[in-house]
Formats: sequence, C-alpha cells, structure tokens
Amino acid sequence: MSEAVLRSHVDDICQRTRPAAQALAAADDAQRQAALESCAQAIEQQHEAILTANAQDMAAAEANALAPALCDRLRLDAGRIADMVAGVRAVASQRDPLGRVLDQRAIAQELQLEKITVPLGVVAVIYESRPNVTVDTAALCLRSGNACILRGGSEAVHSNRALADALQEGLRAAGMNPDTVQLIRNQDRALVPVLLSRDDAIDLVVPRGGEGLIRSVVAVSRIPVVKHDKGVCSLYVHADADVAMAVELIVNAKCQRPGVCNAIENLLIDRAALASHLPAIAQALQAQGVELRCDREGLAVLPDAHPASEDDWSEEYLDLILAVKTVEDYQQAIAFTNHYGSHHSDGIITNNGSVAEHYLRLVDSAAVYHNASTRFTDGGQFGLGAEVGISTNRLHARGPMGIDELCTYKFVVRGAGQARK
Amino acid sequence: MSEAVLRSHVDDICQRTRPAAQALAAADDAQRQAALESCAQAIEQQHEAILTANAQDMAAAEANALAPALCDRLRLDAGRIADMVAGVRAVASQRDPLGRVLDQRAIAQELQLEKITVPLGVVAVIYESRPNVTVDTAALCLRSGNACILRGGSEAVHSNRALADALQEGLRAAGMNPDTVQLIRNQDRALVPVLLSRDDAIDLVVPRGGEGLIRSVVAVSRIPVVKHDKGVCSLYVHADADVAMAVELIVNAKCQRPGVCNAIENLLIDRAALASHLPAIAQALQAQGVELRCDREGLAVLPDAHPASEDDWSEEYLDLILAVKTVEDYQQAIAFTNHYGSHHSDGIITNNGSVAEHYLRLVDSAAVYHNASTRFTDGGQFGLGAEVGISTNRLHARGPMGIDELCTYKFVVRGAGQARK
Repeated sequence: MSEAVLRSHVDDICQRTRPAAQALAAADDAQRQAALESCAQAIEQQHEAILTANAQDMAAAEANALAPALCDRLRLDAGRIADMVAGVRAVASQRDPLGRVLDQRAIAQELQLEKITVPLGVVAVIYESRPNVTVDTAALCLRSGNACILRGGSEAVHSNRALADALQEGLRAAGMNPDTVQLIRNQDRALVPVLLSRDDAIDLVVPRGGEGLIRSVVAVSRIPVVKHDKGVCSLYVHADADVAMAVELIVNAKCQRPGVCNAIENLLIDRAALASHLPAIAQALQAQGVELRCDREGLAVLPDAHPASEDDWSEEYLDLILAVKTVEDYQQAIAFTNHYGSHHSDGIITNNGSVAEHYLRLVDSAAVYHNASTRFTDGGQFGLGAEVGISTNRLHARGPMGIDELCTYKFVVRGAGQARK
Repeated sequence: MSEAVLRSHVDDICQRTRPAAQALAAADDAQRQAALESCAQAIEQQHEAILTANAQDMAAAEANALAPALCDRLRLDAGRIADMVAGVRAVASQRDPLGRVLDQRAIAQELQLEKITVPLGVVAVIYESRPNVTVDTAALCLRSGNACILRGGSEAVHSNRALADALQEGLRAAGMNPDTVQLIRNQDRALVPVLLSRDDAIDLVVPRGGEGLIRSVVAVSRIPVVKHDKGVCSLYVHADADVAMAVELIVNAKCQRPGVCNAIENLLIDRAALASHLPAIAQALQAQGVELRCDREGLAVLPDAHPASEDDWSEEYLDLILAVKTVEDYQQAIAFTNHYGSHHSDGIITNNGSVAEHYLRLVDSAAVYHNASTRFTDGGQFGLGAEVGISTNRLHARGPMGIDELCTYKFVVRGAGQARK
C-alpha cells in the first residue's frame, strides 16, 4: 500500500478519535461503568462470531506452522471468553480513577487551588498475538476516560476484528461513540511508523510484546512511550539470612514461572554465607532442573556448577538458569545490583533489619523486597487491579501500571475576581 | 572539534555523574540542606570572581552588539547575586521531596507495601543566556537528590563557569562529590546531540529557553524531555459575567506582562455579551495600547479594530495584541479553546456557577480558572516554591514543575518469607 494511502488511513483514524476522547472525558463514572457492562454483554452475545473468527486465525496459524506456544496464546474458547468478560467487569468495578483530588489548598490571594486527575486523552497500544489484550486494553482505557487506538498482531487479525466489533456494538448500545475504541484493521507493517509520528493526535503509546516489538516502537515514536524493557532481577542472601527462607524464596523467584519478567536471573550471596547457605540453595534449585552459573568463589563450593562469564550478570535468561555472584557485603550487593540489574525487582533475604533498610533505600529498582519473592511485582498482587503492563521507565509510571497511570492531572483554580499583582 | 573528541568528553561527564547521583541519593535531608547552605556561602564568598567573569561576558556581548534585552538578562550585580543566594536558601527550606509515602497498605499475603518518592537520577538542563538558571537548577536538583549536567549558552560562558566553580566548591566544603553538579565547559554546539543520545546515563532533559532551543532538543533527544511548548491562553467572557471584573481580569491577563506564557492571546465572548461587555473591555485594553483583532461580529461592535484571520486563533503574540472571537455559548467556547489553544492556562468569567463547573471540567488545559487571571500559573503563585519551568507535557509533569516533579517513586515491599502461590 502506498504511503499516501496509509497516511490518509491514519488521518481518518486520528480525526475520529480526538472527538471521541473529548466526549468520553465528559462522561461521568456511572456512564463509563455502564459502557463497560454493555461491552461485556456484547462480547457474551457475540461469542459465536468471536469463536468462528478465532478458528480462522487458528487455521492460518496451523497452515503457517506457528510455534505451539504462540498457537496457545492465540486460541480462544468458551472459558477464555468468559475470563475476558469477567475481566471487563472487574475493571468496571475498580474505583473511578478520574476527578481524584491530589492536592487542595488556598494559594495566592485566597484563590482555591485543586489538583485533580484527568484522562491522558488518546492512548495507542501496539501488541502481538494474544487477542485478550484487545479487550483488556480497551476496558482499562474506557475506565480511565481515554479513547484508544489498538493495533494487534496479524496472527490474530480475525479474532481482534470480531472482538472490536463486539466492543463497538457495546459502546453503541450504551449511547457512546463507537470510535472511542478503534482497532486498526489494516495489517500493513508500514502503517505503524505513520501512526507513531502522530504526536499531535495520540498522547501515549504502550507497546506490549517481545523485545523486538518494543525496540521498533521506541526507535520511531515521536509520541511518549511507556514501556517494559527487561527484567534482570535478583535476590541477595545476606550473611544473616535464614537458610530455609532463602531456599524457599529463591526457588519461588526462579522456578515458579521462569519465563516472566519478575523471575530472578541473579543470586547474590555474601562470602560469609557461601559455605552455610549455598549448598542447600543449590540442591533445591538443581532438584528443579536449574542450571547454576557461578563465579570462582561459588565454584569452590559447588564444583559441578558452570562457570559464569561477565555477560551472565546482565543476561535475562527467562529460563531455568541462574547466575550466582559472591559479594563481600551488602554495600557490594547494592552496587552490583544497581550496575548490572535492570532496575525492575530486587530483594534481600536477611534477619538484620538495619541492613535490610539500607538495601531497600539504596537499591534503585521499581520494586525492592525484604524477605519476599520478587514474583509479587504485578498489578494484581499489588492490589492495583488489572494492569496495562509493568513499566521500566522512570518518568510518569514506574513498576506495575494500572488505570491510575493512564491519567494525568490538571490544576483547577476558583477565584472571585483576583488579578495578579 | 571532532565527534570522537566530543564523544569522549561526554563519556567522561556521564561516567562521573552516575556515581555522584548514587551518592547523593544516599544523602539524607539534613545533608542535602547543608550542601545547599554551603553552596550559598560559596557564592557569597566568590562574588567578586563571579562579577569579574560576568564583566567578561558583558564586554563580549557589547562587542557582539547583543540585543539590550539579552544584555539585561545576562548582567549580574551585587543585588542579583544576593537574589540567587536567597533563592538557594529558599530551595533548601522547602520540605524534603524524597521519601514521601504516596501509598501504604497490606497487599497479597500480608506483605507491607509502600510507594515512596525517590530521585529521578541524573537531570540535564540546557538553557540560554540567564546565568541565574545555573544556580536555580543546581539548587532544585540537589534538593530533590538529583545530580545534574548543565549546559548554558555561550553568551554566559564565563559567568556560568564562575558560578559552577562556586557551587562545586560549596559541595566540596560540605563533604559532597563536586561531580554532583556538572557544567559542560565546552561550548561546541555539536556536543548537544551527543549528550542527548545518552539515555543510558541521563534520566531527564529539561530545555529552558526559546522555541528554537526547545525544538532542537526535542528533535534529537533519546532521553525523555519535559518541556514548555507555547502558551496560547484565553479568557472567556460568559453572558453572565460581571463587566467590571471582566475588564480587570482581561487587562491583567493581557497587559501585566505580555511577553510571558501565561498571558492571554485570545478573548472569547458570548454573542449575548458583545454589546454589553465588549466596548468597556476594548476601551480599557486600547488605553493600554493593545491592538484588537476581531471576527466579523466583534468588528460590528468595534469598527476600528483589525479583522482577525484564522491564523490569529492559535498565534502566541507575546505582545500587546489580542484576538477576539465571538461564540454562541459556553459549549462552543470550550470546543474552541480545546481546538485552538495550547492547553496551558484558560479561564472563564461568569457569575453562573454551574456553567463555570462545566467549563472547568471540560477545558483540557494544565490550569483552568474561574473568575481569576491566567497569570497565576506559576510555581511561586501556586505555592510550589521555585520552579524548573511550566510543562506543557501531559505525561509525568503538567503545569508548574517544582522539586516534586524532579522525583519518581518506587515500591518497597517488606515480608516475612512470603513466596508467590
């Protein structure tokens, strides 16, 4: 497709989205909740059409010999549709993120100042194969008063269209502009850079998917991006750690779900704990099939482990592999974590409260833990409700990102005729 | 200078700044306050060296026939140095922006979650001729626990070097790493893009200056930018406005300081108020030398005014010129403001509280006003203390940006051995 055609297609989408966003910003809490309930019902009513569309995607996936893991992500069934619908209702039931008073006081000349939360405006989300992202994202954006532009993967094109049709039908039935949720139906890859040049029409872009997708979005976007880079997380076993607790937390943080961003990739251990703690930890990990990659001092205790190279300290394995680094003390552990880690989730295991507080204060990560698994870094576990993702940005949103992070704020000033002196 | 030399220069600065930022993040409130007091004293002690350096810049400015307004911005004297020192002490006396608990609760499995404010890390500020920005910015960054990299304009090179020498001497005397505040002493313009490519070493860049500077930073930066675009602000005279209040607020918002971003460029007026309100407003404005540019309906009331063109509705005059637009009602006023304005500061003048609340809710600007001048949009007026600037971004910081907006947050989780189920 020619660039001119793509531009005109993107123009059309952008022109329809801003008025929809403005109308949504004027809707009150009850109207946004009713729209979400209407969307949930529309998905239920159209579940056969959704399953038929998904069967088309699955047939294409088989014909293209898509990897089994990707096929599994793509597949919808009655249970998964019910989960999506329940997810929409759960988002509807979250407290209103808009109009929250963040600050309120009298300022110069008795003017009344309020700082209140408002929607960002138009949010674009670019994602890969899982069709439930279409529904999750639309629900989170609607709840927070944002119009959204969705661009899913080509593998899920039929499923996403059927889901977007249901969402737009739900909006229509609730008396809302269906353009509030827009799916880009054109799958031409050249459209994405055109879309990402529209910082006049889109306020935030969230890429959801693998490293390649995220990099390609960051490379061309003129719109602010909130993104998830990588999770090189660690647990640090201090000399005063309880051995049984260390074993349990490290096995949990490495093995419970090794392919996710909040699983650990590095184990740091005090030299003074090598002989007392490492053998039990290693035995438990090896029983789970974990390959250990150790520095020279670790190898002295675990002669069967693999030697670690410098690259291991910043590698995100997403697999049953763990790098083991010996440190002198907690200060070296903090410095190592800040240098090699990805500032995502890191923790210390110790019974020494003062060392723990030092660690919590000085490790510069989105989430820092004392005597707990790093696997808790998650919107649901943190009680934020459904999440848009986990941000590794430092600005705007850091860590699990829920509906509050899809908001900005404004200052409202009420006066009685005050002029500035 | 060759790109390789510039790269190595920027490398050197970046390598020294990150450790300084980490050390500063470990400093407590009293240490940061003491460092600021030490900097204030160092500026006082070195005031002769600062004035001598400034005289060199002033001599160069005269030789280069710099515009009188720019010369005035550049000039330092005993009074202005005293103001800078007082500014540093005022920043020191602001409440600590770090370690504030934004949220605190028990989450999954009785884990204790805290969301607390922490420094951003390393902040770069790129600015033009006023040397006081060197001191203001360094003080705001120090107070909020951020190391800073400063790049001033070439006109102020000697003054900035003398001020940075004093700041670094103050840091040293307080036992702090002088690399916490770094001035880039190389004035090669080609260095800026090299610096702005270092998103690995710098967490935020703030351009302070004219539109050209800001655009050039945004165009090349890979680092997040918080910036100030332009201020196309407006006041809207509703049919129920008090005439005397309308006259006072519009004259204040247009004329008190026409060259600043929160001065108004547009006056919106209800058709029903044209005959009753516009003549008195126009008379008061014309007495101040303001040129009015009106639409057809305004010209019918003010036949001597200039006709407005479509371009006038989004023009930032920064001068004694005001565009006057007639609207049907408050809904049209809101739509017009959201379409043509720059989402900076806009206000309504009316005695109708319900119309005012509609306007305040639906005008999508950083600051919205009822019965007050837009000139109050300012960190000092809002009670935020000294400001880094006024952000027209929607993400991270919107409106006046003080020390709180130089912070991010992290989640601190304290447990007793909890693993994720």
